Amino acid sequence: MRQPVDLPRAYRLLNHGPTVLVGASHEGRTNVMSVAWAMALDFDPPKVAVVVDKSTYTRSLIEASGRLSISVPCVAQAGLVTALGNHSGRDTDKLADFNVSLLDEPAAHGPLVAGCVAWLDGVCLPGADNAARHDLFLVEITGAWADDRVFSNGRWHFEEAGDDSLRTLHHIAGGHYLAIGAPVDG
Amino acid sequence: MRQPVDLPRAYRLLNHGPTVLVGASHEGRTNVMSVAWAMALDFDPPKVAVVVDKSTYTRSLIEASGRLSISVPCVAQAGLVTALGNHSGRDTDKLADFNVSLLDEPAAHGPLVAGCVAWLDGVCLPGADNAARHDLFLVEITGAWADDRVFSNGRWHFEEAGDDSLRTLHHIAGGHYLAIGAPVDG
Repeated sequence: MRQPVDLPRAYRLLNHGPTVLVGASHEGRTNVMSVAWAMALDFDPPKVAVVVDKSTYTRSLIEASGRLSISVPCVAQAGLVTALGNHSGRDTDKLADFNVSLLDEPAAHGPLVAGCVAWLDGVCLPGADNAARHDLFLVEITGAWADDRVFSNGRWHFEEAGDDSLRTLHHIAGGHYLAIGAPVDG
Repeated sequence: MRQPVDLPRAYRLLNHGPTVLVGASHEGRTNVMSVAWAMALDFDPPKVAVVVDKSTYTRSLIEASGRLSISVPCVAQAGLVTALGNHSGRDTDKLADFNVSLLDEPAAHGPLVAGCVAWLDGVCLPGADNAARHDLFLVEITGAWADDRVFSNGRWHFEEAGDDSLRTLHHIAGGHYLAIGAPVDG
């Protein structure tokens, strides 16, 4: 079940380096794309950094709206993540073509993809130079949620879910991923 | 055994989101710290983005030298990664205190930590505003290497190593990590 995540702990949704789905909506148009290059940037207020190539349709929606959302997909969605990375919203209605359902979350401005295990929504910080030179967007997070089967009390606990299809995906290359694995204490 | 990684494929060393050790050397002083917030930023030439807090000793060495190195640690080093994240080089000689051995790699300027499974070395790109506002450093990678037991031909293959202690670490919080897990094709 989806539960809000306290904003000062929202960085933990990305701390272990999952591949994500970045989405944006503007004037009735919505798109979502797969992104391996995303990371936390600050704790409180939470900020994240995301790389979104200039050629993408999602980029145009991000720049038009000044916002983006992040959904953290899981093993059950590996095929979808590859599809959303290999096709452009310029050429096709990806949400319709790949049967992407969006959550009805009134506090989010960007699209949150159903079936994912965590979600963040935020507003882009000023930084035209980062975007122009490096395709880099810095985003202040204004809402965060997670599926409490795998994240609660500020911690991931995949091993307690009893369902490996809920583990996060970490992209290697070419549609090959590694699932997040076993706990290690150091 | 350590082997060079072709620079256009160096991004793959970070693509799956491991926690890393960031190091820097300047005028005979060397330090290494644990960093969960690192990601690839570009393919060719390869660039990465790393967050390094203002309070750290490593930060002062990065700013003085204009360079940093990244070592990708593994499960066998979980205790070391926690120690290098919880102590400051301002207070102690971390390399000596925690028995950190550095590789003898003539092509690297920054310290490469022995026992890790991949390494990158690079030069900071101009961007005082990113550093001042966001503790964010953008780095062009000038050298990359990996342990061929787990990375070769441009691909991670942890499952073939037969040694789970060589898997990368992905920090959750407070010295708790998840090891990278099983392959998933999507």
